[in-house]
Amino acid sequence: VITVCAADNATAERLAGTPGVEVVVWDGGPGDAAALAQVEVLLANVGVRLTPSEAVKALPNLRVVLVVSAGLGPWGPALADGTVPASITVCNGRGVHTSATAEMAVAGLMATVRGLPTFWEQQRRHEWTRHDFTGLENRRALIVGAGEIGTRIAAAVELFDGAATLVARSARAGVHSSAELAGLIGGHDIAVIAVPHTRETERLVDARFLAAMPDGGILVNVARGSIVDTAALLDELTRHRLHAVLDVTDPEPLPAEHPLWAAPNLILTPHVAGLSAGWQDRAFGLVREQLRRLAAGEPLLNRTMKDY
Amino acid sequence: VITVCAADNATAERLAGTPGVEVVVWDGGPGDAAALAQVEVLLANVGVRLTPSEAVKALPNLRVVLVVSAGLGPWGPALADGTVPASITVCNGRGVHTSATAEMAVAGLMATVRGLPTFWEQQRRHEWTRHDFTGLENRRALIVGAGEIGTRIAAAVELFDGAATLVARSARAGVHSSAELAGLIGGHDIAVIAVPHTRETERLVDARFLAAMPDGGILVNVARGSIVDTAALLDELTRHRLHAVLDVTDPEPLPAEHPLWAAPNLILTPHVAGLSAGWQDRAFGLVREQLRRLAAGEPLLNRTMKDY
Repeated sequence: VITVCAADNATAERLAGTPGVEVVVWDGGPGDAAALAQVEVLLANVGVRLTPSEAVKALPNLRVVLVVSAGLGPWGPALADGTVPASITVCNGRGVHTSATAEMAVAGLMATVRGLPTFWEQQRRHEWTRHDFTGLENRRALIVGAGEIGTRIAAAVELFDGAATLVARSARAGVHSSAELAGLIGGHDIAVIAVPHTRETERLVDARFLAAMPDGGILVNVARGSIVDTAALLDELTRHRLHAVLDVTDPEPLPAEHPLWAAPNLILTPHVAGLSAGWQDRAFGLVREQLRRLAAGEPLLNRTMKDY
Repeated sequence: VITVCAADNATAERLAGTPGVEVVVWDGGPGDAAALAQVEVLLANVGVRLTPSEAVKALPNLRVVLVVSAGLGPWGPALADGTVPASITVCNGRGVHTSATAEMAVAGLMATVRGLPTFWEQQRRHEWTRHDFTGLENRRALIVGAGEIGTRIAAAVELFDGAATLVARSARAGVHSSAELAGLIGGHDIAVIAVPHTRETERLVDARFLAAMPDGGILVNVARGSIVDTAALLDELTRHRLHAVLDVTDPEPLPAEHPLWAAPNLILTPHVAGLSAGWQDRAFGLVREQLRRLAAGEPLLNRTMKDY
């Protein structure tokens, strides 16, 4: 029997009845030490408040962390700095949110290029005034992150006659390397951030990155808020120089008094890109497959190495 | 020399300098009869108020009408009922608006399925509340019209893991015939109208069509307003049973006091789907090619037959 720690009863119910699996519900704070000592697998899905260091301390027999997002969230730095020992395997949820995340990036981008926010305001005022908006045709989109999400976004840009340039850590056929990134920004109307949050991507989109974007450029961030320098972006938006589509912010949740809420030329959604009706089925399908592999002694999927 | 009638000075300036072409500016009403008698080609582009019957009366030497939209507008019925004699060739602007029109349909559809109107309202209130919205994944979209616009929309639906069913007048490989349409509506979450306005498509989307759509279904109309029964749609929207994305309305422009403006679950844009920065270049590129063909005695493109 494998004991799995889930953050809430809803998650536990999803796993109830899985053969060979016991579920303990715990999300940090005081817990039943005897029960926690049985835990070998931690489900670090959306909504878990538990920090990696607290988890490692409270779960002495922890062997596997299943993170149900494309990136690793706080587990990345915790792996890198040794907070999480190498004896614990951390797996991400690659594939679970792919289609939904790419879809939200494209929905926000298309809404922006076709002026939906303007027409929305007109609809509120019952005003029929026609404006031309340049669509994706002939636009150049720089997609930072050439994984499943980035390549899906690129396909959508190309479907509507735009051109997509993919950038990843290492160059490969059809993909530029991150070393070339700085030189590519100025030649693109659109920059889409679709990379995991790592030490390398923290504040990747800083004042200099934004300044290199052409006037009227559009920044799309569906990755993590801390990849973008919020203050620098707010400055560009407030000067009406750039547009943005943000599904993630820094801080998050964004406090009601934060000036980003009222920034012009911004479509802001509350970190919902990866959510759509199908994501939970996919997430728990992956979790069950991982548990089956663990019980059978087979290698886990999506294992994260030190070079996350 | 071929004399072309344009509706406004901006259009005339676009054609100025085209070898072998003279331009007369006229958009109905009193005109210089001698100048109008020279006109062989009429540009019936967006914004022309001139009716076919007025044009035919005022332009005795009219040979060719170039309509710069995918459909024929009022020229379709006028051809069918003989108002426009068979000696006049009417050509549509197929291809000019394809990408832009499909793009707007997809932008509105994606905004709807991913809840952008809800998040827009939250953004106005500075409210960070997460909601799941079902994306296009596993949705079934019925695309009425299997021309370039419809097939482009279908490709976008499929890119985000939905399924598209195409319907055209006649069945062909991968396309259902309009005779099957009524039986297909109920099995689809989304209905996209991308057909020209003809006698056959007038009020195609009537109360019965809408009633056959499942609860929560989404109607997208980027074709012509009169294809949809506005009162019947308004009823479905007001009861919160269906969602809609309308780029076209009946009447048009929609008067400020019309109840459709305030209908729930509606994204309404003022007939701008076909407009984007590139459309004028494409439109005048097509017009110049048609004039070249006319001068050279070559067959015109996009000629419309009686069976428009």
